[in-house]
Amino acid sequence: MKLYDGGKAPNPRRVRIFLAEKGISVPTVPVDMGAMGHRSAEVTALNPLQRLPVLQLDDGTVLTETVAICRYFEELNPEPALFGRGALGKAKVEMWQRRVELNLFFNIASAFRHIHPAMKEWEVPQFPEFGESNKPKALEFLGMLDRELASREFIAGDEFSIADITCLCAVDFMKPARIALPEHLESVRRWHAAVRARPSAEA
Amino acid sequence: MKLYDGGKAPNPRRVRIFLAEKGISVPTVPVDMGAMGHRSAEVTALNPLQRLPVLQLDDGTVLTETVAICRYFEELNPEPALFGRGALGKAKVEMWQRRVELNLFFNIASAFRHIHPAMKEWEVPQFPEFGESNKPKALEFLGMLDRELASREFIAGDEFSIADITCLCAVDFMKPARIALPEHLESVRRWHAAVRARPSAEA
Repeated sequence: MKLYDGGKAPNPRRVRIFLAEKGISVPTVPVDMGAMGHRSAEVTALNPLQRLPVLQLDDGTVLTETVAICRYFEELNPEPALFGRGALGKAKVEMWQRRVELNLFFNIASAFRHIHPAMKEWEVPQFPEFGESNKPKALEFLGMLDRELASREFIAGDEFSIADITCLCAVDFMKPARIALPEHLESVRRWHAAVRARPSAEA
Repeated sequence: MKLYDGGKAPNPRRVRIFLAEKGISVPTVPVDMGAMGHRSAEVTALNPLQRLPVLQLDDGTVLTETVAICRYFEELNPEPALFGRGALGKAKVEMWQRRVELNLFFNIASAFRHIHPAMKEWEVPQFPEFGESNKPKALEFLGMLDRELASREFIAGDEFSIADITCLCAVDFMKPARIALPEHLESVRRWHAAVRARPSAEA
């Protein structure tokens, strides 16, 4: 199999961190998204939606979508469980993974795509005022998350999960999106320092 | 357990269809979203994000997020499998479920929320031009889906799955969002007529 990887972009990073946490090594094909490599004929043939990452299995089967690729590896290599354990544990990880995606990750991404000059060719047309409106929504969610993290170690409970990976990539994406992490969110900062220090964060 | 249900809105409908396909009956607490019932003190205490549906278990545990609630029931009642079978089957359902959400469901929802006068109190402020920009994106994805559905029965393969539920609720949401389903998308229309005719669609 091979993984078409998109470098610094947050979704390819989510998959790399997931694989590092699992201890799985997959041959990668680097794609330069800055040079629009994700819209090349090769990537488009694999994923008509022109997004990365893309996983191609040895028989040619193509899997796209970050969380789908992660789930494939979770099913093949259940330990360490990054999607939770048991019906309630799995549901809680899914709940937090989606809360973080919908209220933090996507709001930060919308701010970045609709405001940043480098995104002019990606997001056509840009709506900068709409982009700005996403920033307070992201910060509001971080406030809620701070209250949650005051009483537990990780996003979805006492174990590290894919929800932490999504949240780490979202929080680190605030810098290019030019959103500052407020000083007073002490529990978010404690959590961020801890997950940022894991070896997988460098993947 | 009890399910706080939001009536006609597409996310509560996704959970009701899922439960109907599973043959599971859950006591519901109806919430009038038109009267902003999802922002009541009762719902806010359960879900600070003020979204529906919300599932409360008998011990008080709260699960939110449509797909997390569905996954909880999938884990407890594996048949019929609506999240796929085996590592590759599960990954494919997740891939299509997310493709439909990100490229169709969310684009239609953005058009609805940023344009429809009834959404003025929900989406503050509305950006009608941004809303409009989501319509061609939704239609472009439906064109891709039409080519896919020319060679298979359901969204993620030969078996009905949660991806079909998400896509049904998205396509039916086009009407209030004032987006017409193009006549020439014959495979999408064949698929839509088939899933719309299942008894679960009335749930």
